[in-house]
Amino acid sequence: MTRDDCLALDAGDALAHLRSQFALPEGLTYLDGNSLGALPAATPARLAEVAQAEWGAQLVSAWNNAGWADLPKRVGEKIARLIGAPENSVRVADSTSVNLYKVLHAALSNAAEGRKTLLMQAGSFPSDGYIAQGLAAQFGLDLQRVEDDALEAAITSDCAVVLLNHVDYRSGRLYDMPRLTALAQQAGALIVWDLAHSAGALPVAVAECGIDYAVGCGYKYLNGGPGAPAFLYVAPKWQAAGLSGNPLCGWFGHAKPFDFVPDYRPAIGVDSFMVGTPPVLSMAALEVGVDITLSADPALLRQKSLALTSLFIRLVQQELAGFEIELVTQPEWPRGSQVSLSHPEAWPLMQALIAQGVVGDFRSPNFLRFGFAPLYNRFVDAWDAVANLKHLLQQEAWRAPEFQAPKAIT
Amino acid sequence: MTRDDCLALDAGDALAHLRSQFALPEGLTYLDGNSLGALPAATPARLAEVAQAEWGAQLVSAWNNAGWADLPKRVGEKIARLIGAPENSVRVADSTSVNLYKVLHAALSNAAEGRKTLLMQAGSFPSDGYIAQGLAAQFGLDLQRVEDDALEAAITSDCAVVLLNHVDYRSGRLYDMPRLTALAQQAGALIVWDLAHSAGALPVAVAECGIDYAVGCGYKYLNGGPGAPAFLYVAPKWQAAGLSGNPLCGWFGHAKPFDFVPDYRPAIGVDSFMVGTPPVLSMAALEVGVDITLSADPALLRQKSLALTSLFIRLVQQELAGFEIELVTQPEWPRGSQVSLSHPEAWPLMQALIAQGVVGDFRSPNFLRFGFAPLYNRFVDAWDAVANLKHLLQQEAWRAPEFQAPKAIT
Repeated sequence: MTRDDCLALDAGDALAHLRSQFALPEGLTYLDGNSLGALPAATPARLAEVAQAEWGAQLVSAWNNAGWADLPKRVGEKIARLIGAPENSVRVADSTSVNLYKVLHAALSNAAEGRKTLLMQAGSFPSDGYIAQGLAAQFGLDLQRVEDDALEAAITSDCAVVLLNHVDYRSGRLYDMPRLTALAQQAGALIVWDLAHSAGALPVAVAECGIDYAVGCGYKYLNGGPGAPAFLYVAPKWQAAGLSGNPLCGWFGHAKPFDFVPDYRPAIGVDSFMVGTPPVLSMAALEVGVDITLSADPALLRQKSLALTSLFIRLVQQELAGFEIELVTQPEWPRGSQVSLSHPEAWPLMQALIAQGVVGDFRSPNFLRFGFAPLYNRFVDAWDAVANLKHLLQQEAWRAPEFQAPKAIT
Repeated sequence: MTRDDCLALDAGDALAHLRSQFALPEGLTYLDGNSLGALPAATPARLAEVAQAEWGAQLVSAWNNAGWADLPKRVGEKIARLIGAPENSVRVADSTSVNLYKVLHAALSNAAEGRKTLLMQAGSFPSDGYIAQGLAAQFGLDLQRVEDDALEAAITSDCAVVLLNHVDYRSGRLYDMPRLTALAQQAGALIVWDLAHSAGALPVAVAECGIDYAVGCGYKYLNGGPGAPAFLYVAPKWQAAGLSGNPLCGWFGHAKPFDFVPDYRPAIGVDSFMVGTPPVLSMAALEVGVDITLSADPALLRQKSLALTSLFIRLVQQELAGFEIELVTQPEWPRGSQVSLSHPEAWPLMQALIAQGVVGDFRSPNFLRFGFAPLYNRFVDAWDAVANLKHLLQQEAWRAPEFQAPKAIT
């Protein structure tokens, strides 16, 4: 496998034209779209339009006349198509963590009584664990965190709710949503899925799998911008009156928000999970990213994603043998759209790699993460990442002090 | 009092130059900044910079290199100066309703045991009431809503927490923060203030008054844009370890968010009230609005605000006698920066007024609200609003069917 072979794959890529819809810096190999997706080329103009032609020119009337009030639903319905959800089951709101608090509270409120456990993966995204920790204490449940090999056996009739990450943020492992959902249901437990690392990167079928609740992130594979609003899914069966279970009773979740009545009466359905005034600028930016994803054939996107990560794995095996690099993402695993490697000194190595123009990221304890966004990543990106890594490992420059200092966020 | 007299007041206005920092449509009399503040002229360029020079060009590294990770604190410290709060007591996060949920939960968690009541104003902003209703049920408290004339007497040793709006969103009445806070403290209750209609419009002194918690809104007098992030204040005495009381345990509230450890350990202090990833685009827009407010002398701002609303009241009395218009905002009340009128058919009247280019808004049951933003409103705006209203009332055109149909939001 050579760089020219990779360029040939790009030449034959049916989705290659989509890269031009993103404003990526020249010469940068960006493999961190699983942390922050790239800027869609159309987003700055859309932001200018919302600011000037809507907010500036129409002021408060834009809530009606420019469709601001519909944004949580409008963008939510678009995301619904990406995750296999029916109409009126997905809304955009708040952050992923706040949304998880709402739907996990709802799941725990609606779970069968007398059960003792809130079950999750040991490798779950930390913020999911923090939210779950708070709610488990509030509901008097044991929070059980299990390793992958113990997961299926832990789904028992002790479980009130099972909370799972669809793709592990560190290892890239993809979990079997149909199977694990069926196991939870057989055990009489409710199941909540975090789609942060799958929505937009691979086909998700929440309705077909019969899951109860889900949350997901707007700023990774949906390219909604830094801190973009998140989304939530509430299965139709949990939308009946009296089942909302959302403890954050805000005016946008009221049946008649603009009647300004004193008593809270939740909207029927997923709208009861709205809370405060939606952040219009951020939602408008998110919509641009979602629209690009919707324009692509999801099967082709998944096919390209798997081809990219397969190529990267193959190149790591071909080029990096003998350099203390190991595959964290096992080739035989189902995986999302990222590949993680490990190295004893992963931190300075990643900083040096970034300084060379290849952007992945570090995750503790010693992981190098590389995300492949099928909308804009190229096959040659996989080559360039591995070639740069190899070049670094052949020298000692990456051990320089400048690459050792930790930063707040990578 | 004539229109020329109003123009003369504008000519002598020491703050008149600030209007040029906003992009207001020509010919529009905008008196709804208490609902949605105007677009600062600098905001579109700042949004373009964040999108292109930060997100687009720096991608994920902008979290460190462009200061995104500091935004909740940086903008929070600026707002702290507007509300008389010390360093490290204010952060920007989430929506007002979500923030109220967090700080009210904290107040209820830290309140003296054995108390039965969560007290609030009957005229409180509805979303505050909805959040309070949910939490009162969760904590097993009675939610007591009292009219203004019964408020002081209701602050008793039965109260766990007193939740008050600093300015009534419908009537414009300003409540006495020093006195009511002292009464709550004498009764042994904690006090939470909603500053949505005061922060940025008049001087607030949360530390001097010794209040416990506050929340406030970014999209009204702070001109942060539609659905801008909100802020919260936590008094230093409630910042000690173990007192956080924020049930939304998210990663941005963790002591070490980027260590990705599984156990939640809250940050010490106000940072423990952060939850999810901050919405960078919206926070950057908010900062532009806050900076304009900070550039003005707060005493002069308040002086102009009172002069504007006094003039409007005087013109209403002078021009609109005999038209079924009544002052809701009583001239002898302390008031915020708005004046509300009533009319038996306030809805179509306001729609017709908006169609004439004077934007106020309707609030149930029959109120016409007029907000005066001292940063950009002129004395002649008060004249033009009253003159247009008089002109309408002298005819019957505003009773036309086109002005009767309700809209979702005004």
